[in-house]
This record gives sequence, C-alpha cells and structure tokens, in this order.
Amino acid sequence: MKQIALLGFGTVGLGVYEIINQHRGIYFAGTDTPATIKWILVRDKNKKRAHNPTDCVLTDDFNDIINDDSVDIIISAMGGMEPEYTYIKESLKKGKHVVTANKEVICAHIAELTDLANEKGVKLYYEGAVGGGIPIISSIVETLKINKITKIQGILNGTTNFILTKMAKEKADFDEVLKIAQELGFAEADPTADIEGYDVMRKICILASLAFHTHAKTEDVHLRGISNITLDDVNMADSLGYDFKYIGQALLRDNRYSISVTPVLLPKDSVMSNVNQEYNVILLYGDIIGELCFMGKGAGKDATANAVVSDAIKALTEEESQTHINFNETANSYGLSGIKNEYYIRATVENYEQFEKVIDLAAGAIKKNNLTYTNSKVFFTTELIRSSDMLALYEQLKDAAKDVFYARMEHSLL
Amino acid sequence: MKQIALLGFGTVGLGVYEIINQHRGIYFAGTDTPATIKWILVRDKNKKRAHNPTDCVLTDDFNDIINDDSVDIIISAMGGMEPEYTYIKESLKKGKHVVTANKEVICAHIAELTDLANEKGVKLYYEGAVGGGIPIISSIVETLKINKITKIQGILNGTTNFILTKMAKEKADFDEVLKIAQELGFAEADPTADIEGYDVMRKICILASLAFHTHAKTEDVHLRGISNITLDDVNMADSLGYDFKYIGQALLRDNRYSISVTPVLLPKDSVMSNVNQEYNVILLYGDIIGELCFMGKGAGKDATANAVVSDAIKALTEEESQTHINFNETANSYGLSGIKNEYYIRATVENYEQFEKVIDLAAGAIKKNNLTYTNSKVFFTTELIRSSDMLALYEQLKDAAKDVFYARMEHSLL
Repeated sequence: MKQIALLGFGTVGLGVYEIINQHRGIYFAGTDTPATIKWILVRDKNKKRAHNPTDCVLTDDFNDIINDDSVDIIISAMGGMEPEYTYIKESLKKGKHVVTANKEVICAHIAELTDLANEKGVKLYYEGAVGGGIPIISSIVETLKINKITKIQGILNGTTNFILTKMAKEKADFDEVLKIAQELGFAEADPTADIEGYDVMRKICILASLAFHTHAKTEDVHLRGISNITLDDVNMADSLGYDFKYIGQALLRDNRYSISVTPVLLPKDSVMSNVNQEYNVILLYGDIIGELCFMGKGAGKDATANAVVSDAIKALTEEESQTHINFNETANSYGLSGIKNEYYIRATVENYEQFEKVIDLAAGAIKKNNLTYTNSKVFFTTELIRSSDMLALYEQLKDAAKDVFYARMEHSLL
Repeated sequence: MKQIALLGFGTVGLGVYEIINQHRGIYFAGTDTPATIKWILVRDKNKKRAHNPTDCVLTDDFNDIINDDSVDIIISAMGGMEPEYTYIKESLKKGKHVVTANKEVICAHIAELTDLANEKGVKLYYEGAVGGGIPIISSIVETLKINKITKIQGILNGTTNFILTKMAKEKADFDEVLKIAQELGFAEADPTADIEGYDVMRKICILASLAFHTHAKTEDVHLRGISNITLDDVNMADSLGYDFKYIGQALLRDNRYSISVTPVLLPKDSVMSNVNQEYNVILLYGDIIGELCFMGKGAGKDATANAVVSDAIKALTEEESQTHINFNETANSYGLSGIKNEYYIRATVENYEQFEKVIDLAAGAIKKNNLTYTNSKVFFTTELIRSSDMLALYEQLKDAAKDVFYARMEHSLL
C-alpha cells in the first residue's frame, strides 16, 4: 500500500481527498497500486471542518511528513510561492514523488525542480497547474515525442473568460460584470492576478517551457490586462463580427520564442470565440500532427482534483517517468517585432485637431472604410502591420488622444 | 534495437514510414528504445513507387513476417476486414505487439482481440482508428481511471463535415457538394460508408466499447445518413440560428447504452457547430471531470500516422499495458425510447388535404409559431418529445406526405 501525504486541505485538497478516499470514482482501486492518504498538512489542526477526515492524520508540522520514510508521494495543494516551493523541493530531495497544481512554483522553478526530480529518480507532475482538468501537459509531452511544437494559444483563465462572455452577452460594462463575478465567486476580492493576466502569464510560460524545451521566463512575456476593454469596444467588435477573448500565446520561430498575454478579437464563427463562461481551451500546433485543440473546465474543485489524482496514479504506477523533458535547449525570447497582425484601435478625441492627429498618425496602417467616429471616440482597424510598429503607433496615439486601446485581430483560431 | 513490421504501404503506411525512417520528428530517437522498420508487407513487390524504401525488406508474403521471431511489433495499416483481421490475430497469437488504425477490425473484434492480447501479454493499440491525430482513445482510458463516462458525442467523419460545411457556407445542394468533395479527394468514388454513416458508426462503437466497458455492437446503433439533407433544410436551419452537423452519440444510463449516428441541428454559437471542414471533434462527459472536448484533423496521412507511431512508441516503451479495459460489464443497448429532444421536421405536401393531415399528426408535438409553408413544403420544429414518439410520428408523416425529413435539435454541445 502506497502512502500519500496531502499538503493543504482547501478546495483542491478536499477534492483530492474525496476522489481518493470517498469512492467517488474508480481511482486507485482501478489500478494495481492501491494507495491511501496518510497525512494531511493543515494550518490549524483544531479548526472546525465540514469534512473531517477520519482515516488519516492531520498535522500542522511539515516535519512529520518529510521525516516519515513511509510516505511515497506528496500531493501539494496549498497555493502561493512559500512555503510550498520549499516543501516541494524538500520532498524531492528526500526521494518522494511530487504532484502539485501550483502554477506559481512550477512557472518560476520548472527547470530546477525537474532537474532535482530526475537526479533523485522521482517524478514531478503538475497537470492541474494549467487548464484544470484539461490534459494539456500530458498531451504536450506526448505530442513532443513525434512533433516539434511551434505554437500554443489558448483561453487559460476562467474568471476573465466569464467576464468577457458576460460583457458580450449582456452588453454590460467591465466594472459591473466584475462585481457580479465577485458576488458569484468567479472572481477574487482582489482580482488583479486574473484581470491583469499574471495567472495566464504563469500558465502559458509553463506550457511554453515544456513545448520549447527552455525555461520561458515571465519577464519575457508581453502582458496586457483586460480591464481597459469597454462596452463600446465589445459593441464595436460585435458589429465587426468579432468577440473579445483573453489569449495566452507562445510562438517558436528560428529557435526563439515569443510569448504574449493580451485581449484579442476572434471571429464569431471561430471555435475559440465560442468557448464561453469558465471554460478553457488550448490549441497547439505540431509540425506533423497539425492543429490539436483541447477544451474543458479550467478550474474548480473536481476538475483540478481529477488532474492531480490522475498525476498521482501515473507517478505511482509508471515504471519510468514519461517526462524526460529538458529545458536546456537554446530557445531565447525574441519579442514581438517580427509578427504581423491586424489590429483594432479605439481612441477618445476631444476636438477636431486631436481627431486629425489620430488619423494622420494611423494613416499608413488604417484599413479603408473601417473608421467610425461617435461620441468623441474614433474606432478603426488596421491592415497587417508589425507588432513593433503597432507598439510605436500606440505610444504616439497616447500622446495625441485619450484612453487609447488596441487589440490584435485574429482570422482563425480554428 | 526493436524490429517493426509494417503491413500496408498506402497513405497511412507511408506516413508511418516517413515519421520513423525519414527523421521527420523526434519519434523513437527521443525515447530510450530505438526501433526500425524491418519488413513492409505490400501487394506487389515490383510496383513502381514514388518512395522506394531502401532500409527494409518489401515482401508480399505475410509468412515472412509472422515467422520472423525478431519482429517485436506489427504496425497494421491495410484497411478492410480481411486479411487484416487474420494478420492481427496471428500476430497477437505469436506474442507480437499490434498497432493498427483499422476501425472495421477493431469495431467488430475489440473484445476478442483485447482478450487475446492480454492473454499473450502483448499490447494492442488503435488510437488512429478514431479521430485521426486526436488522442481520444488514450484520453478515454485516462479519464476512466477516475471517472465514470456517461456520454460521448462528436463529429467523427471529415468527409461529411466537409460536405455539410460547404452546403452551409456556399448555399449549395448535397449532390453538387458531394461531387466537389469527390473531385478534391475529400470523398471516395463510392461515398456510401461516409454519407450513410458506417464509418462514424464504427468509430462511435469503438469509443462506446471502451468508455462503457462493453462490446458495443453496430447492430444496436440508430443510424441515419446525411444524403437527405437538402439546401432547403440548410437554409431553414440557418434562419433558426442552427447548423447541421453529423453527430455520433453514445449515452449510458442505468448501465445500458444507447448509440446513434444522425444529422443534428446545433446552435450557431456552440463550439461544435463551428468545427468545420475536415476537422473532427469529440466531447466526453466524466462524472468528476465534467465535459472534456478534443479537436483536430480527423484523417489524413500525417495526423493518422502520428497517432499510429505514438501508439508504437507506447507499446515498445511502457512496461505494462495501460489499457486493462474489460468489455464484460453488463451494459446493454436500450435504444432511444427514453430520450427527449426537440426536432426539426420537413415534409412535402401536394395539396391542402396533405397539409392538414401533417398538421393534425404533429399537433401534439409542434412548437408554437414555428411553422413555415413554402413551395409545397412544410417546415416546423417540435417541443421536447420522446425519440420513440418522434419515430412513430415520422412513420405516420411518411404515409401522409412526401420526402419527410427530421433531425434532432441540440441546445448546447458546448
């Protein structure tokens, strides 16, 4: 009988406990390797709990766990960088398998922790860190056996997708929808990590690191949040036949990567523009298999716990780690300069002079017959221009007008 | 060095050969288990070939292969029932792993061949048989470790999806589009297996067999083709906000399964209605993970060959088979009677008497304000009614009017 220690007994921890111990599935009983949870690390042992685990020991001291040689595997479901990073590292050092859904720790330390796991001959899995129940990490690892992956794009955050969906369907303003999302529990009291993109940034960096065999760093990510999208933008996109989505994107060209997290306009008849509410979707491109797309619930107790327990089963039943991923190939960040796209642009102009200045600045890029002026706002779309030119134009427009906003327009995403 | 024998050197066989032998990927070199193709079974050794394999032996005699004890694995890529079924069985009996993309053989003999493989301690994998490069079979196997799967729905045939997409986008008639599809090589000269649903039927039976732990039989499938869909139907669907898709569906209720392959109307803002051209999509529902959806190219040389080589890598590198699927649980077919749906119905009436009769017959089911009469044709949609009632109504309508057609209407499919 294999012994599991569970770190954290919050939403995901409870989900994991339920799947393993309350017979809500086939789980370990369906494998040849039965396992039980021996320890649960909690902050307060004496706290009143709705679910009081009876068949394992609650402890508030990690030393109980790390010094217990009978523990085969650590399922780490705490959240935040510390102390979870230290606990994961200590566990690997002690030769214990580690499964976690902690995207912060994995994003920052994927190379170091993978090396450590390989050195110790144990497994480190983190399927639950990206896309909740969507098996995207195992699919990338599997795809890499035959393919070179050169593109990953996706909707990786349920909160912001919920907000954008609700803005579009109910023609409501950002602040209004954010409030509803918070009331419904879809957004945190402090929504910064979601709406400013730090959450997506970490997830797309993890996927890029695996796919491109390099430790993709968050400081290389071109990051823009969604809080500047107004109802005007949503309505204008709608009239152009587009929907706003918040897209994490990682591209590889000539062995250099480019990662961005930005609002993007997708055609209404694309697959991804119809992925709504709290769903996540991830598209990857392999040179042989072509486009593969995965969709499912990107968060939530059961979906994430499913991914975590699935990882634990793999760690305990596989002879050898299936993830001989190395992060040492020489892919470097190359920024955005080389990529050409069409853009949607909106600016507020307070007088005719400002209007003229905006038009003058955009003259070389603007798409014919695609300019609207209403309520002191100018809206237009561009021809294909380089991302670096768009950035330069944006800086100039900000000087010439107020509240300038822009977003990439995609033709496909399936 | 592991030895591979490849049966068949058609489209998929060539794709497999290219991936393994022409360094078009990372493939076996990325694993610890290098392998080469030793034999290729062809019909005519002396046929002129665009690609003439030089590093292996071409034979037209299966005995060369089956009697070669150095052959570890058979990659079977011929097509049709015989002689491939016999070759697969003989190979398993001789203790060789088998990978195939042959849906006909697997659909008919999944239980027998799996038992044989288990008995001989070898692996039988067939990811390429369903959904081309989409890793749907491994995802079902993985999902089953934790979940009970109760629903699988999908677009599983590229040819018919190409036809339906083109009818909708170009407002063209079925026969016209079929001809174009044939000219472009998207449809066979004899398109029966695609447009009458035999291909989808086999694929959904394979998925249902795995998901429901039973050998789902094709004779239990409620099967209707797409050749009766007219441009009138496509236009009417469009005006109602729907698109036609050809959906394979397998449901499990109270340990009994129901499988259908029918044209279905999907809302234009659903994910699946936007899966166009030759793409396939498969949705599965697990009781813990919820809805998971997979999308990609459902056919084609490279996508299918990718799945086949991926299977071969798994077979040669895994210690133990990951597919301890049994087909002996007592799920039985239960037909359609219990399922309630809304339907779209079209009938041609030649006079007022026939019109009245159709309306009378449908009176109990018809949805208010949803009847159109034009050019001697009546179109209407129904309230939620039982499938069995729909079938009975269909039989009555066929007596009362001409060219009666109906299709299920779905509200979601994501």
